[in-house]
Amino acid sequence: MKVSEMVRAMGFHPVDWGNLAASRDIEDVPLRLMPSWKRPVAVVFGIFVFLWILAFFSFQICRNIQSGQWDENWKRIPLTNFNRVIAITALWTLAFCYIPGLIAAYIQLWRGTKYSRFPKWLDDWLKMRKQLGLIMLGLAGIHACISVAYITPQTTGWVYEEPTRFQAEVVVDANTTTTNTLTIYNNEFNWRGEFFLSMGAIATCLLVVLGISSLPSVTATLSWREFTFIQSKLGWVALITAACHDVFLAWHYMFLYWGCFRTLPIGPQYALYPPFIAVIMKLPLLLPPVDNYLQKIRRGYERGSQSESKKGNPL
Amino acid sequence: MKVSEMVRAMGFHPVDWGNLAASRDIEDVPLRLMPSWKRPVAVVFGIFVFLWILAFFSFQICRNIQSGQWDENWKRIPLTNFNRVIAITALWTLAFCYIPGLIAAYIQLWRGTKYSRFPKWLDDWLKMRKQLGLIMLGLAGIHACISVAYITPQTTGWVYEEPTRFQAEVVVDANTTTTNTLTIYNNEFNWRGEFFLSMGAIATCLLVVLGISSLPSVTATLSWREFTFIQSKLGWVALITAACHDVFLAWHYMFLYWGCFRTLPIGPQYALYPPFIAVIMKLPLLLPPVDNYLQKIRRGYERGSQSESKKGNPL
Amino acid sequence: MKVSEMVRAMGFHPVDWGNLAASRDIEDVPLRLMPSWKRPVAVVFGIFVFLWILAFFSFQICRNIQSGQWDENWKRIPLTNFNRVIAITALWTLAFCYIPGLIAAYIQLWRGTKYSRFPKWLDDWLKMRKQLGLIMLGLAGIHACISVAYITPQTTGWVYEEPTRFQAEVVVDANTTTTNTLTIYNNEFNWRGEFFLSMGAIATCLLVVLGISSLPSVTATLSWREFTFIQSKLGWVALITAACHDVFLAWHYMFLYWGCFRTLPIGPQYALYPPFIAVIMKLPLLLPPVDNYLQKIRRGYERGSQSESKKGNPL
Repeated sequence: MKVSEMVRAMGFHPVDWGNLAASRDIEDVPLRLMPSWKRPVAVVFGIFVFLWILAFFSFQICRNIQSGQWDENWKRIPLTNFNRVIAITALWTLAFCYIPGLIAAYIQLWRGTKYSRFPKWLDDWLKMRKQLGLIMLGLAGIHACISVAYITPQTTGWVYEEPTRFQAEVVVDANTTTTNTLTIYNNEFNWRGEFFLSMGAIATCLLVVLGISSLPSVTATLSWREFTFIQSKLGWVALITAACHDVFLAWHYMFLYWGCFRTLPIGPQYALYPPFIAVIMKLPLLLPPVDNYLQKIRRGYERGSQSESKKGNPL
Repeated sequence: MKVSEMVRAMGFHPVDWGNLAASRDIEDVPLRLMPSWKRPVAVVFGIFVFLWILAFFSFQICRNIQSGQWDENWKRIPLTNFNRVIAITALWTLAFCYIPGLIAAYIQLWRGTKYSRFPKWLDDWLKMRKQLGLIMLGLAGIHACISVAYITPQTTGWVYEEPTRFQAEVVVDANTTTTNTLTIYNNEFNWRGEFFLSMGAIATCLLVVLGISSLPSVTATLSWREFTFIQSKLGWVALITAACHDVFLAWHYMFLYWGCFRTLPIGPQYALYPPFIAVIMKLPLLLPPVDNYLQKIRRGYERGSQSESKKGNPL
Repeated sequence: MKVSEMVRAMGFHPVDWGNLAASRDIEDVPLRLMPSWKRPVAVVFGIFVFLWILAFFSFQICRNIQSGQWDENWKRIPLTNFNRVIAITALWTLAFCYIPGLIAAYIQLWRGTKYSRFPKWLDDWLKMRKQLGLIMLGLAGIHACISVAYITPQTTGWVYEEPTRFQAEVVVDANTTTTNTLTIYNNEFNWRGEFFLSMGAIATCLLVVLGISSLPSVTATLSWREFTFIQSKLGWVALITAACHDVFLAWHYMFLYWGCFRTLPIGPQYALYPPFIAVIMKLPLLLPPVDNYLQKIRRGYERGSQSESKKGNPL
């Protein structure tokens, strides 16, 4: 305490981090390497590896078993596969930012109080959301960069108008030509492509706004309600926009088309599983009676408690 | 005051927000939802709706009256229309960030003093500039994302070299072909396209720098003159670069071509109206005598006042 | 001192900037225009001008001497030349962020101590790294924006699959056709293009992360080791990724192809010179004995000194 006083007298702000026994931990502080990032990075990396193997199986293994040639799609691993996998990883990760809050809401509704601790795994998950969101933003950014350069009617035919085929004398070498059918692609988006690209750009922009609001100096200028509004409302809009971006890409292939001997779901299908779970879990919470009851619990109400008013808390 | 002292003794910084009567307002603070953003969002949304209706009239209504088929361009609403409209909204909004400062300068020149209050609408407008600029940045970002994926010689022919047309036996179905003229587009930009894309990329980058300088922690590290330099000088360069980006897109169509039965201006034309007004208003202020006089007023000089020196203020 | 006390009593933080003689400098502070940016901007501008002249000589002068027509490539100056030049400027500048630290390490190894001052030019260079890095990020951003819109198999053939050539009756005007060989480009990337684009997107994303970690409020939340990890480890990964992006673009042209009468290196070749120097200088420092010795010096060890322990410093 004397030290604190002396420090304050010298015009600094003393910060008391505990007694002498804690000194070993405190000395390690400047050497700690982002302890809050280790687990989220591991989780996203796990999702990425899982989806990468799935994509590898669909596009390389399965396709080559079908053709029997074993020469297809190998060169597509560094970009095409990678881009699809990070896109799906990003969408899953974004959904995984909202699912723990939904589980927490159901636990609070079930227990009828906010004054009981969540299970440790849920607590850890809730604390991981900011990091998950920022990693997701990085993946979404890489996906956007690659995609705007990659997208052409030849490589992403689903979202463009029909190409034209014609017969031509193809030049094989200086003296030889051979009659062949060639394709001229149509660079106009079809109506699904128009929605697909708009949704993608809007989702990217919303995610960047979410990311900016996570910068310490920006967060500091936001009121509690403003931060919640951005992270929750805008975040949900971003999740749904990104999911629609995926839906407009696949559209009727979403139901008619299956990959790998028509057994496995295709990428745009399984990309939607976690966002779909999040939306399904969210919908009941939007019903006014459920919502009101949850707000009441979060204001401090306890079901079956006689002493509510005492524990009441304006927020 | 006693509370303040006690708080300070505890090592915190007391902040006095007024007496007991203000408590109701203060309690609302954490629940306020970005009060400074409501009006700018409404203004930009108004501009967007106005321009959206204009674009809808030009591309859908008017085009279909001309053709009489009522089947054209409907599918283009979600992307092509949207992209044009946000591009023009962004350029207008950027100009509207600079016009109020120009009006203020003329008022100061007219009144010969800086010690009189601006009319309330101008004051509100001046306070809105930061928000207008940031919304503009979001729109410009979406426009950039969409455009780099959208731009092809087929969809934006004005900025590319001439395509080649040839006669071909187009394949209709397995057994039928029909002779038709097909087009192979040339993916090389013409000289206007080269300027068009460079200007667009530079303007985007400058706007991002302007946005970064608005982050609280960055603003805090900038001196008054540095902040003014970035927001004013770089901002004007961004406005002019973005306007040139638009000029190089349309170029000779800027004067020769009119939309909708040759009566209405086309998008790249009316996009330039507010930037043009801003530039026209700015030019006289750049004349050295006018500029010097304005600087003098802003340093505290008052026309017709005998007590200038007393009110003199170094900035 | 009395002033300080009074200020503190009023609840503010006094900051003592020196005695009365310093007042003239202090009054200039709000008018200083980014003094730490002047030199880095000048350096990068110098590199840009040098590379611009080189590119102008290669693509315009030299090409037109060869053809003798003096009509080639002039229209490519605003975009194609500009884009290549800023890409190479960015890569050089990024390498120049890491080379001074390497020189400093060799000086420390040579002198066997960290307690001697670096030569002034090196000191200035070390202090310039942050600004160099941020300017580099701006250039890389413009390069990315332009490139994703510019890249097509016609304009960047090296990274795409082979096009198809065919003979066609080209329409010259309404009544005339002429037999000609036309090209249909293939929009699929070859394996080098897949790596090229992935590497580019990943490098961009890493550089943005580096830029974000330089924001004052973000830097403030990072421990010393975290900041070093991001700026050093991630920065090196970004440098190597960006260099690979360049290598995959040129690939076998990297060695077989020379510009300008087969005398001058081509852009993707000289782009690699500074990153190559940086890597060559870095490699010996990664050898465990050298690394350990350098760490020891940086912890305060002095070669040939008897009083090491006294000057020992935990970091």
